[in-house]
Amino acid sequence: MNASEFRRRGKEMVDYVADYIEGIEGRQVYPDVEPGYLRPLIPTSAPQEPDKYEDIVSDIEKIIMPGVTHWHSPYFFAYFPTASSYPAMLADMLCGAIGCIGFSWAASPACTELETVMMDWLGKMLQLPEAFLAEKAGEGGGVIQGSASEATLMSLLAARAKVTKRLQAASPGLTEAAVLEKLVAYSSDQVVATLGTTSCCSFDRLSEVGPICNKEGMWLHIDAAYAGSAFICPEFRHLLNGVEFADSFNFNPHKWLLVNFDCSAMWVKKRADLTGAFKLDPLYLKHSHQDSGLITDYRHWQLPLGRRFRSLKLWFVCRMYGVTGLQAYIRKHVQLAHEFESFVHQDPRFEICAEVTLGLVCFRLKGSNKLNEALLERINGAKKIHLVPCHLRDKFVLRFAICSRVVESAHVQLAWEHIRGLATDLLAAGME
Amino acid sequence: MNASEFRRRGKEMVDYVADYIEGIEGRQVYPDVEPGYLRPLIPTSAPQEPDKYEDIVSDIEKIIMPGVTHWHSPYFFAYFPTASSYPAMLADMLCGAIGCIGFSWAASPACTELETVMMDWLGKMLQLPEAFLAEKAGEGGGVIQGSASEATLMSLLAARAKVTKRLQAASPGLTEAAVLEKLVAYSSDQVVATLGTTSCCSFDRLSEVGPICNKEGMWLHIDAAYAGSAFICPEFRHLLNGVEFADSFNFNPHKWLLVNFDCSAMWVKKRADLTGAFKLDPLYLKHSHQDSGLITDYRHWQLPLGRRFRSLKLWFVCRMYGVTGLQAYIRKHVQLAHEFESFVHQDPRFEICAEVTLGLVCFRLKGSNKLNEALLERINGAKKIHLVPCHLRDKFVLRFAICSRVVESAHVQLAWEHIRGLATDLLAAGME
Repeated sequence: MNASEFRRRGKEMVDYVADYIEGIEGRQVYPDVEPGYLRPLIPTSAPQEPDKYEDIVSDIEKIIMPGVTHWHSPYFFAYFPTASSYPAMLADMLCGAIGCIGFSWAASPACTELETVMMDWLGKMLQLPEAFLAEKAGEGGGVIQGSASEATLMSLLAARAKVTKRLQAASPGLTEAAVLEKLVAYSSDQVVATLGTTSCCSFDRLSEVGPICNKEGMWLHIDAAYAGSAFICPEFRHLLNGVEFADSFNFNPHKWLLVNFDCSAMWVKKRADLTGAFKLDPLYLKHSHQDSGLITDYRHWQLPLGRRFRSLKLWFVCRMYGVTGLQAYIRKHVQLAHEFESFVHQDPRFEICAEVTLGLVCFRLKGSNKLNEALLERINGAKKIHLVPCHLRDKFVLRFAICSRVVESAHVQLAWEHIRGLATDLLAAGME
Repeated sequence: MNASEFRRRGKEMVDYVADYIEGIEGRQVYPDVEPGYLRPLIPTSAPQEPDKYEDIVSDIEKIIMPGVTHWHSPYFFAYFPTASSYPAMLADMLCGAIGCIGFSWAASPACTELETVMMDWLGKMLQLPEAFLAEKAGEGGGVIQGSASEATLMSLLAARAKVTKRLQAASPGLTEAAVLEKLVAYSSDQVVATLGTTSCCSFDRLSEVGPICNKEGMWLHIDAAYAGSAFICPEFRHLLNGVEFADSFNFNPHKWLLVNFDCSAMWVKKRADLTGAFKLDPLYLKHSHQDSGLITDYRHWQLPLGRRFRSLKLWFVCRMYGVTGLQAYIRKHVQLAHEFESFVHQDPRFEICAEVTLGLVCFRLKGSNKLNEALLERINGAKKIHLVPCHLRDKFVLRFAICSRVVESAHVQLAWEHIRGLATDLLAAGME
């Protein structure tokens, strides 16, 4: 495919993408396929000679779409949101074209420098303490990771390297294994200090945990993967109070801040803690500026060597929405969650199972777990909307998460009417 | 930005991308900027109100491009190639629009199932032993990781979990820390068993290492990050002989197989070794098919929970190039490397420092390391072409890697004439 064919096919694809998103409400949110559906539909091996592009395009609707769970449908209320916006998609096209691998400053200075500044923009939007920002040429700074899991793993490894050095300095001769045996990672049943758990979006009390960690010389990592985006709104910022005690902090703009996956934002107070644990310097990666103290080589901040130009997505999204646009987006989702909450409150057969703070409502029918399992089965079997459950203190609970960029009050109302109707049928069938 | 504006801006971006790639030869391959160049060019915080899209677009050429190292320029001969092709970019647009997070089969069945089949396609192109394929519903299969580092880490963790279980079964009461202290990971100075090292593209002897590992019950992971793509050509497949002894194998189609970053292909003989080490099953991720034995939940195969629909890129690329097209691409690059090698051989001032097997030529001026450091400095200072060095047995060596999709014989000739000229100047200045 040459450039002129790409111009033609690329523009067709832009239209396909726009058609898909404009028409997503008309697609069944959860697919009908059974496991193994796809293999019989395609050849057992790659073609020797090129296929026609038209055939690939027609296979998208024939083979791929019937097996897609439509995460961006306004009837998708499962898991947590995954971000999607047109500005982020435009930025990703540019990212693919530049196609640099930004493991060092020299490998593409713009890739590193835009990331550092975007992480400052984002940190300021969250009113992070200055110690986390790179701006003042201090010791802190931010980095884009692929996922919150990677950010957590990086924190654990950095914490381990730091404490091992400290213990070995205090007791020379101590082996690394002996240190490892003594190390303890404290976590709740939702792991590390968490703001906005996946099950029910609950919040750990940082102002209690934080001072203890600081006093005992323990590394404090805070994971606010989903909830973090909300902290750009002043009315939710108090949920982040205590972040000043943390060594590292992470949230995922790719969940709720309109930046397509992957873009997991992580900040540390002391960049040397990360780079000290992971420094990798073979000659082929060295460059003339690296010892100047002026530059950042992000390969020392992450597990993989390679990295895409992901800050372009943040840049496009922040500029095309503006802070007020992003705040309005968060507020709309929270408002819709409260709307759903009020519906549940109005029906005495149901109960709310956890405080609704952001965009997640945990609810259930009063009654047995079995009853609620049956309700969820009917909901997901009908495939008009899509939900997933969780366990809260041994209770089987339904999660209603506001997810789609295009979800409106009308969709939430329809979803609720649908759930109520299925519950009525179920109760009429004598289940308790 | 609504759908109709995206249609317009998306098509403009398609043209920008095509213009960029068509015109990339005219851009200076390595940028002129100094560390810290970008921060003064953009505001210190995100705009409160939306910017105009036109302003963002004009900032691409004003702010971003001056700091880009152009990895896809035909004058870029540094590091290793990173893949880029129009079909992969089209697939990535579709991937962004679908925007599913395929951590489980249910989270988007097409995402999981296409990946499994594409990994079989790719495995067959490499003539991997059947034990690595998922096709026959055996114990093996493939997964797309983000990077070779992640694949290596997954192998190490899986190997550790496996041997820990074995030792604890043999000696109940053995603590995990005691096991860890006994574990040894063998590697060369280029890490794990490697086919095509980064420094000089050398190859470990699998047929010697493999049987020892198997006999001693040691996990054998083979990393062929760069070289793996070449094994789709029958004349290079012998370099992979011995893979039948491996427990896991990995290479990066995102390096040399025209699939844009990230797409790191990893196969295991026993998927239970991976999933046994990493199984994560909270209720909100469970689905009705997961215990059927019929499906794959890729979250158990990797570190992050989230994952994009990356197999679309493989699908588009395999179909648009066909196996013969991909083979021709590899062969052209290898041919260009040999062409450069023959130029070096013809100039008695230079020497070749390692066998040229694939697309990398390691060479230097006969003489001191200092001389070669000075030569590299002049080459990269002139910014007509871009190279990086390596150390081979204490010698400072220049690496000439064939990288760009659009590099032709004429570019290689120009690059060589340029290098020769700079060497002549350097030697005339009396350096030895």
